[in-house]
Amino acid sequence: MIKVGVLGATGMVGQRFIELLDKHPNFEISALTASSKSAGKKYEDATTWYLEGSMPESVKDVVVSETDPNVLDGDVEILFSSLPTELAKVVEPKFGENFIVASNASAMRMVDDVPLIIPEVNPEFLDLVEIQQKNRGWDGFIVTNPNCSTIALTLTLKPIHDNYNINRVYVSTMQAVSGAGYNGVPSMAIVDNLVPFIDGEEEKMESETLHLLGTIDGGQVKYADFNLSASCNRVAVLDGHTESVFIELDEDIDILDVKNKMSNFKGLPQRLDLFSAPKNPVIVTEEKNRPQPRMDRNTEGGMSVTVGRLRRDNSFNNSFKYTLVGHNTIRGAAGTSILNAELIVKKLL
Amino acid sequence: MIKVGVLGATGMVGQRFIELLDKHPNFEISALTASSKSAGKKYEDATTWYLEGSMPESVKDVVVSETDPNVLDGDVEILFSSLPTELAKVVEPKFGENFIVASNASAMRMVDDVPLIIPEVNPEFLDLVEIQQKNRGWDGFIVTNPNCSTIALTLTLKPIHDNYNINRVYVSTMQAVSGAGYNGVPSMAIVDNLVPFIDGEEEKMESETLHLLGTIDGGQVKYADFNLSASCNRVAVLDGHTESVFIELDEDIDILDVKNKMSNFKGLPQRLDLFSAPKNPVIVTEEKNRPQPRMDRNTEGGMSVTVGRLRRDNSFNNSFKYTLVGHNTIRGAAGTSILNAELIVKKLL
Amino acid sequence: MIKVGVLGATGMVGQRFIELLDKHPNFEISALTASSKSAGKKYEDATTWYLEGSMPESVKDVVVSETDPNVLDGDVEILFSSLPTELAKVVEPKFGENFIVASNASAMRMVDDVPLIIPEVNPEFLDLVEIQQKNRGWDGFIVTNPNCSTIALTLTLKPIHDNYNINRVYVSTMQAVSGAGYNGVPSMAIVDNLVPFIDGEEEKMESETLHLLGTIDGGQVKYADFNLSASCNRVAVLDGHTESVFIELDEDIDILDVKNKMSNFKGLPQRLDLFSAPKNPVIVTEEKNRPQPRMDRNTEGGMSVTVGRLRRDNSFNNSFKYTLVGHNTIRGAAGTSILNAELIVKKLL
Amino acid sequence: MIKVGVLGATGMVGQRFIELLDKHPNFEISALTASSKSAGKKYEDATTWYLEGSMPESVKDVVVSETDPNVLDGDVEILFSSLPTELAKVVEPKFGENFIVASNASAMRMVDDVPLIIPEVNPEFLDLVEIQQKNRGWDGFIVTNPNCSTIALTLTLKPIHDNYNINRVYVSTMQAVSGAGYNGVPSMAIVDNLVPFIDGEEEKMESETLHLLGTIDGGQVKYADFNLSASCNRVAVLDGHTESVFIELDEDIDILDVKNKMSNFKGLPQRLDLFSAPKNPVIVTEEKNRPQPRMDRNTEGGMSVTVGRLRRDNSFNNSFKYTLVGHNTIRGAAGTSILNAELIVKKLL
Repeated sequence: MIKVGVLGATGMVGQRFIELLDKHPNFEISALTASSKSAGKKYEDATTWYLEGSMPESVKDVVVSETDPNVLDGDVEILFSSLPTELAKVVEPKFGENFIVASNASAMRMVDDVPLIIPEVNPEFLDLVEIQQKNRGWDGFIVTNPNCSTIALTLTLKPIHDNYNINRVYVSTMQAVSGAGYNGVPSMAIVDNLVPFIDGEEEKMESETLHLLGTIDGGQVKYADFNLSASCNRVAVLDGHTESVFIELDEDIDILDVKNKMSNFKGLPQRLDLFSAPKNPVIVTEEKNRPQPRMDRNTEGGMSVTVGRLRRDNSFNNSFKYTLVGHNTIRGAAGTSILNAELIVKKLL
Repeated sequence: MIKVGVLGATGMVGQRFIELLDKHPNFEISALTASSKSAGKKYEDATTWYLEGSMPESVKDVVVSETDPNVLDGDVEILFSSLPTELAKVVEPKFGENFIVASNASAMRMVDDVPLIIPEVNPEFLDLVEIQQKNRGWDGFIVTNPNCSTIALTLTLKPIHDNYNINRVYVSTMQAVSGAGYNGVPSMAIVDNLVPFIDGEEEKMESETLHLLGTIDGGQVKYADFNLSASCNRVAVLDGHTESVFIELDEDIDILDVKNKMSNFKGLPQRLDLFSAPKNPVIVTEEKNRPQPRMDRNTEGGMSVTVGRLRRDNSFNNSFKYTLVGHNTIRGAAGTSILNAELIVKKLL
Repeated sequence: MIKVGVLGATGMVGQRFIELLDKHPNFEISALTASSKSAGKKYEDATTWYLEGSMPESVKDVVVSETDPNVLDGDVEILFSSLPTELAKVVEPKFGENFIVASNASAMRMVDDVPLIIPEVNPEFLDLVEIQQKNRGWDGFIVTNPNCSTIALTLTLKPIHDNYNINRVYVSTMQAVSGAGYNGVPSMAIVDNLVPFIDGEEEKMESETLHLLGTIDGGQVKYADFNLSASCNRVAVLDGHTESVFIELDEDIDILDVKNKMSNFKGLPQRLDLFSAPKNPVIVTEEKNRPQPRMDRNTEGGMSVTVGRLRRDNSFNNSFKYTLVGHNTIRGAAGTSILNAELIVKKLL
Repeated sequence: MIKVGVLGATGMVGQRFIELLDKHPNFEISALTASSKSAGKKYEDATTWYLEGSMPESVKDVVVSETDPNVLDGDVEILFSSLPTELAKVVEPKFGENFIVASNASAMRMVDDVPLIIPEVNPEFLDLVEIQQKNRGWDGFIVTNPNCSTIALTLTLKPIHDNYNINRVYVSTMQAVSGAGYNGVPSMAIVDNLVPFIDGEEEKMESETLHLLGTIDGGQVKYADFNLSASCNRVAVLDGHTESVFIELDEDIDILDVKNKMSNFKGLPQRLDLFSAPKNPVIVTEEKNRPQPRMDRNTEGGMSVTVGRLRRDNSFNNSFKYTLVGHNTIRGAAGTSILNAELIVKKLL
């Protein structure tokens, strides 16, 4: 068992980390950090448990420590981070000196020597770890995963990008309220309503996706050479992001082949049979009114993205469109961080 | 006062017709039709009133007649139709023999000699009426308005199309449940969920929009020469359709000029000062998280479309994007039918 | 394995039966019935699956038969019924001639020789089976379970009634939309709204509860001798009924003792260790803002009722109040029917 | 025109004050206060407008001042307060020295010499003003109105209490999220859920109601001599509190007479024809599934309470039950404060 910790353990994504790690065969939670307000308390006393079902017994008595690189127990090997951006920017590099940090925070995603990875998409970006350690003289390192809406989209683009030349992508999202944290979206803002704006989200989708589908060239990430435009909306759904995707290729398409490429797509985590890897990262449904977030978000433990309404776009040449649903705090956050850690254990430790 | 009737008066859109006509200075409701089940009853007894506020006093005692061209009182001049498609296909042409039919039904929209009109967009299509009457030997005629999501979109495209060359349009909708009728969307389908499919809606948006922005040439409609792709979704909002729109022009854009063209857009109804015409068909908001359906759907009595987040699309050349909200049963249905009738009264009677 | 069938297998409660029976160690689904429209089709083709997760593989290929006592395979021993009331009234007595019918329908609940049972509350009412078979000359028999909101309430009243003299009970419910069936509550009726009326529900709660807490005396049910008044409301919750309960006793109360009596309550299913029996039929939470339907409905597989805010009612002598949450289609319907069948298997077969 | 100010003008209830005062024929807004963060800014710049429709033009340019008794312009006569409790406790008595304070805050409601008033219920409590001014040596004074859920309930109890001897009342509420302020209820807490706890609400309902229905005796409030028990719940409704009410009288009831007493009830504001007084404070509907918050909250501008399902309670002697809906931020807050001020103007100025 590898000892792991969760940075920012009392929040929404922190709780997902705990829920997923509690059943993990190789990882054992031995440190939980939060703000100074919670430090020193038992996790049970410091936390309002937001997820359905109960707080796992195994963490109730863990004493929360402050999110401070100096006080963390040296036995811990891997830290999962769901810290707020500003704090992550300051402390993740300090934790990186001695620990392996698998971070869901956005702070370090676009730093040159920090790999931004979805294990099924660009596991080879782990090569940056060596450069990062050398650059910085660290014993540990930081690996990040992208934004929730980017992860779901990019998983579906990967088998297309591998097999066709994408010319352009438009995506309009309908994102769940849990993505903003427990207190992020007031009910007054979303009952009988929706909010067509999520600060910074479109920029993240537009850059992270091309980054992830790019290549490493001389220790540098070379972005994929198509363009993507996003419009992001918040809707009255608890968990599960839905995205309407429009794609134009450089060549003619065979929609059945696109479907097969998506359905049969397997990445390195599937080949390595990693614990958190879904059997199929992308599932294509034929039902005419699916995917739907409440019905499809938990497929394969919330680690698969469901694609539906895959159809030729008759308005444009070489074009098709589809709708996807992915669980934003499992596949889109904690689950991918953990899968990153599993990949690291297999490839680097 | 012109005597008018409502065909399909007990349904959701039928009730909007009644609500709007009740305060109308030139129209007086004198006939209400419904299925044989309701025929012979007082409207008050035949109808569960679904709209906020109470059923107007003026219609409570109107005796509902069956939707049958043979039984309708000859004093009525204009009939507003919110009939189901299949029924409309059969009876609207019969009503058209003797009455002016302003229809919100989809049945006759794409018939060659039937004008499909949004008064601010293509009032000149009224010229088809003469052809229609001649073709069919009718004293009356039928005029239709498009689908709810098409109306909102096309009103915002009109000032762009008038001033620029549009190359392509992508639109992803988040539509209100009222669009499916009172019983159309079960709560089990939409609480903590959304449905990424509305039967026939995408096809309507893709064809009706280009039809409306086209021209009449030798008595034939010539479609606008760009393409449009739609993806339609149903969300947990009562009234008000929201649409994420992506536009590519053939030329460079000045986003401020686009904004001004939209804000300053006036159509014939504004110039003729028609009763139901909003002062501005399109309102552009600068607030960063608007438009929102609950907050913006009732602007100018539900007859204006609100555009927000109008911004350059940096992912593509000559491109911009925005979000719009329009009231689907007012501007998107009954209100536009009534505005069509006001235009007819002014231009043809 | 005992062969069982589900009558009305395509509806909401029918699907819950299938979901629960699919994992059952002693019951094996071998017949599924529905209306003539579905008869002859594979279950997979006849059914839109409404529950989260997928339709169990085991039933996909089962050919649906019509709900007709003459056509049912004689190998089936137990039939679970989720038929509509009118149909149940006609066909359940016919099925009862040869099969054991464990019914969730309301049709036969108040018939003198038909036991109305919650296994933890009044298992001794099974004695009526002998009378029923004798009266009617049947080889089979019918056992019913009460209404969803009654089950949750009565489970919490049972340990109080066993230990104190209840004088009066007031209950106001906030019931989930699933209780009305998939299409029962339109989204237009419940988004930003609630409906303070559920046809027949208050009468059922007021009579069934006293029936269940009564005694069998000379083959007749003698009702419990206190009174209960209910007010029933439908709210925008998918699953899980919440009830505000006010109780006055004939004697002084010790609130801690009430709590212990509830928490420690075990019925015959617990003592017999029946498969579907929750460890604790009633769970008392101390958290100040619980129980909540989304958070607590699935406790012990949806078979426990959660009580919270148990507090002395300082406005009245000998009084206390609390809030409960129970899963309406599991504990409140299919789950209790199945528990009834398990009890029958243990005691009567 | 009397110059008025709003204390706490940027919040939810503050905005309702502004919306209602904007159309008021006798009051003119000339001061708006908020926290130091907003002070010095134009109201338009200090405020996110939460209500449907736009911020009234008349207040956009008003410069917000800090909520500080020392800085307020001496021309203002009446101050409407929607301050948070803790702040109200400190500053309202200071404002009371020189201004008339009509407060919706709870801080001073239970202070002996401060009248707690619903104008239709206990206008005679205004007599306490003289005592208050004498006790404290103030030129101004404070008048308060009760909690939102209390106001709606007490308006319906008043005609009963005037005509019958009430023995006991049980009430279970289903309260709108707006009652907790714009940010009060996270969407994660209420979508597909409800919360059966509102801090301090039950205590307020249980004491304020009896206070309001009491009498003034020797300058002291003597409470009404029946008891009331409340259970308070928050549901996914934006505006409009719904309450299930159970009443036992000391005498036999004639349900038709109860209905007439409620329907015909008029208070002093109706007799004085005050501007904000609804024609009927209580409206009784016969529709079987009403009142509903979305459909009935805005009756008579949100100032009437709608009662429905008024029925004999057959479970108990001398008992009946009903459901009520009242708008929580209009009738339940700002509207009643303004009506109090109108009463003061008429009776004391």
